[in-house]
Amino acid sequence: MSTAARSLARSLPRHLARRPAPLRASAPRPAPSIPAHTTSIRHGGTLPDRSASFTKPTEDHLKVIRGFLSSPTSLLSTIDGSASADDLAVYNDDWMNKYHGKGPIVVKPKTTEELSNVMKYCYDNNLAVVPQGGNTGLVGGSNPVHDEIILSTSNLNQIRSFDPVSGVLVADAGVILETADHYLAEQGFIFPLDLGAKGSCQIGGNVATNAGGLRLLRWGSLHGSVLGLEAVLPDGTIWNGLSTLRKDNTGFDLKQLFIGSEGTIGVITAISILCPRRPTAMNVAVFSLPSYEAVQKVFSEAKGSLGEILSAFEFWDKQSFSLVKHHMEEHLGGERKVFETEGEFYCLIETAGSNAEHDEEKLSNLLEHLMSNEMVLDGVLAQDQTQFSSLWSFRELLPEASGKAGSVYKYDLSVPVGKMYSLVERIRERLHQAGLLEGDGKKEGPIRAVIGYGHMGDGNLHINIVADKYKEEYEKVIEPYIYEIVAENNGSISAEHGLGVMKAPYIGYSKNDTSVEMMRKIKQIFDPKGLLNPYKYIV
Amino acid sequence: MSTAARSLARSLPRHLARRPAPLRASAPRPAPSIPAHTTSIRHGGTLPDRSASFTKPTEDHLKVIRGFLSSPTSLLSTIDGSASADDLAVYNDDWMNKYHGKGPIVVKPKTTEELSNVMKYCYDNNLAVVPQGGNTGLVGGSNPVHDEIILSTSNLNQIRSFDPVSGVLVADAGVILETADHYLAEQGFIFPLDLGAKGSCQIGGNVATNAGGLRLLRWGSLHGSVLGLEAVLPDGTIWNGLSTLRKDNTGFDLKQLFIGSEGTIGVITAISILCPRRPTAMNVAVFSLPSYEAVQKVFSEAKGSLGEILSAFEFWDKQSFSLVKHHMEEHLGGERKVFETEGEFYCLIETAGSNAEHDEEKLSNLLEHLMSNEMVLDGVLAQDQTQFSSLWSFRELLPEASGKAGSVYKYDLSVPVGKMYSLVERIRERLHQAGLLEGDGKKEGPIRAVIGYGHMGDGNLHINIVADKYKEEYEKVIEPYIYEIVAENNGSISAEHGLGVMKAPYIGYSKNDTSVEMMRKIKQIFDPKGLLNPYKYIV
Repeated sequence: MSTAARSLARSLPRHLARRPAPLRASAPRPAPSIPAHTTSIRHGGTLPDRSASFTKPTEDHLKVIRGFLSSPTSLLSTIDGSASADDLAVYNDDWMNKYHGKGPIVVKPKTTEELSNVMKYCYDNNLAVVPQGGNTGLVGGSNPVHDEIILSTSNLNQIRSFDPVSGVLVADAGVILETADHYLAEQGFIFPLDLGAKGSCQIGGNVATNAGGLRLLRWGSLHGSVLGLEAVLPDGTIWNGLSTLRKDNTGFDLKQLFIGSEGTIGVITAISILCPRRPTAMNVAVFSLPSYEAVQKVFSEAKGSLGEILSAFEFWDKQSFSLVKHHMEEHLGGERKVFETEGEFYCLIETAGSNAEHDEEKLSNLLEHLMSNEMVLDGVLAQDQTQFSSLWSFRELLPEASGKAGSVYKYDLSVPVGKMYSLVERIRERLHQAGLLEGDGKKEGPIRAVIGYGHMGDGNLHINIVADKYKEEYEKVIEPYIYEIVAENNGSISAEHGLGVMKAPYIGYSKNDTSVEMMRKIKQIFDPKGLLNPYKYIV
Repeated sequence: MSTAARSLARSLPRHLARRPAPLRASAPRPAPSIPAHTTSIRHGGTLPDRSASFTKPTEDHLKVIRGFLSSPTSLLSTIDGSASADDLAVYNDDWMNKYHGKGPIVVKPKTTEELSNVMKYCYDNNLAVVPQGGNTGLVGGSNPVHDEIILSTSNLNQIRSFDPVSGVLVADAGVILETADHYLAEQGFIFPLDLGAKGSCQIGGNVATNAGGLRLLRWGSLHGSVLGLEAVLPDGTIWNGLSTLRKDNTGFDLKQLFIGSEGTIGVITAISILCPRRPTAMNVAVFSLPSYEAVQKVFSEAKGSLGEILSAFEFWDKQSFSLVKHHMEEHLGGERKVFETEGEFYCLIETAGSNAEHDEEKLSNLLEHLMSNEMVLDGVLAQDQTQFSSLWSFRELLPEASGKAGSVYKYDLSVPVGKMYSLVERIRERLHQAGLLEGDGKKEGPIRAVIGYGHMGDGNLHINIVADKYKEEYEKVIEPYIYEIVAENNGSISAEHGLGVMKAPYIGYSKNDTSVEMMRKIKQIFDPKGLLNPYKYIV
């Protein structure tokens, strides 16, 4: 951090630079229990068996499917030798190399009609299909579990139209998020979603998984910004719901069912989305704070002072900061002394607006208020683009930093903001009681760190548990306990990553029987044969 | 308009105060046709017959239902003499006195459990039910068509909780919108929806009809802001989907189906909604413009310059302005000379932000830009709260002003912004060709005016056709022609009013067969007996 960026730290009154008071020990908590309404839950990580009702894909099927495609390169298969198993690995395996499908056929149609013909044939012949976008998911949702045909949207990659008056973009599902955003940037607009995986993920997949990302706080959920969809239903029917209208109250809003359906009721082939003007001014500041209560207070103050220009509010705990500082020092060298006074917690505030001068004034007023009222211990404000990225890196390097520190159990949870951090404390307490986490800091236990960080503005908490290795003993201490305490707090066991194959068995921790029953009925009317993305989501 | 409010008009360069060029005559258009995918459409305004499969409500039913209710005043009926037909008229008739139900029983449960018991009993006994909120709808959606039991949410009227950190409000369905907003105002927050009917409409009804309103441009659709719902399903099951989480990717987002379902798959009993901080600064300006193209350009400029503080962009045509000026002069006296130069069109721009000084500067910059670049003919900017209301009244008095001028055929349409105004021109042309609308301005025809106005920012157009009287001959010239030209433009025949009983037969103009078929299947899984709000929506 440069001298300029540290100006705020230096200007901090001395009496603020005190050692933060230790967190009060949590009161003893009742034993966790699964709510009465919870559905039965299948524990453990074993994958479901192959369904006997699905046809095994053969060379005959492959020939027919090839006939639907305008280009020979749109079909790759180990069956006819047009591809090796290695060629198909990038489709069968997820990017973390955690899930490994055995799909022998990859189809990449170039038009919605081609895709529709393939789907119709598969439906008529009981061939199971897994839709795949950029394959950047974290729950094994877009990889085959067994020998499902992989239907990739990669070749559906055209921008169809953009209207600069309404800000409505219509584009094929396979357009890469970053490509769409670059296209919009040239016209002064922004795609209302931003993700770490933006260089690889596809906008169709983003919608199918209801991606959240870094600036949901500002641009809202895709349920609000997506205006229409085109999708191919399991039986091959092309559903044209590609409205560009902002308001349309004529019947059930069907597109909403597809947003976050994870490819189980249809394959999204195009989207229509409302894009805001691109902010012309952006600022970022990071603070150290004495407690989680202080983080909440600052969040509230930031919403009040920054109002319409607040675009992100992220937080992380001192354990996170310690890991990321260590990681930076190892890789970039030199001691990282960022704050005169470090804290129990840190938060990052970003603004995005249309007038740099106004935004800076608003942010300065907030900083002054926070410091003069001793709501934060210390703070740094980025003075240029390099510092902007540098401050964001404390947050963005967290997954990498914890990955370097050991084998990481990752959880993506949603809980009411007020209760959010208590989950991290309870996990620590449980691991401590089990003798896995040393509490005195003098001796390293098998669990090296439990860190909590996330999108405070969205109530989205990431817990990373860094262990010396992956071990069933540790997992049993963590799961299903972690899902139980989420359920106790009426939270979500998957805030933004979805269910996929990983969390499908655990839906009962976040949804009651009535909900799951409704979902099963909806799946049934769209896909009575259960051919589309089987073994996942609602099982 | 006071002198202060007219300062902008006075400062307008003289050369701008020219007479606007006449609109170019539209090129001849092809004969309208219903798109091939359109479902069969039942024309005419006759109501559907009573379904023989529904049980007729009797005194025996009434006694059982009374047993479910904690208060004797929660049931009103003409059957047992606890109410007169007049007492029930406010429930049976809509507020415009256009729809007249014959429901003999009104039930107003005080708790979700009471409501659930009533629904279960009705379901088991094949008694049809119509849910009703504030009864402020425009399409007969909340009134009985025949003898359905009226289930009012008026007694479910408690705020359940509000969290000032997350901004999440949880409240009963029967809370009046204005009451909810006043409650939030005290805490510095705002309900993310504003409507003319806010003093009567209920938040449950708002969600059930996916209400749009005046500031959708700023706060977005309810599909984005509603976080959770509690609803009683047709068979009496209480569905608890009252999540307060901003992110939750665990299965289909079921609440989305209920938003805009118009009480056909369940009765919403409580909502959870994300509320923004209340803006502390608001401004409004009105401009006269030479053409619809100019309105579009100004809209684009306003989005660019005002960015995050633009909260409304409304427009109306000179015919609208003429009607409203006449109405004001008749009722308030004195000539209304607002603009030095009047225009073919007018637009209203509102800003809402967190810093008055910043907002005024942004707006001033925009005004200067618009005027120096001759993008507008003239403009007025409100200098105080009275002028703020006064400028809004040019827009808000339009429905009243047209009502005073004759019998009004009202249409609420959604079309892409670029094509919006051509619909008004085509309707005028058609009425002119039919000899109903005089074009030379010398003689008054039976159609006195065709005015176009609406929420430009949302692509939502209101067309009011002011006739000397309601006459089948006029209606036949207008309908279904108006729906046909909406369909030609991939528009919506109901932007925000919903389908109800009025537009249910016409859904095929806005939704294709595939969509309607999916909707029928969804209705079927929730309400296989078709008992809830029958004869409406999807028929």
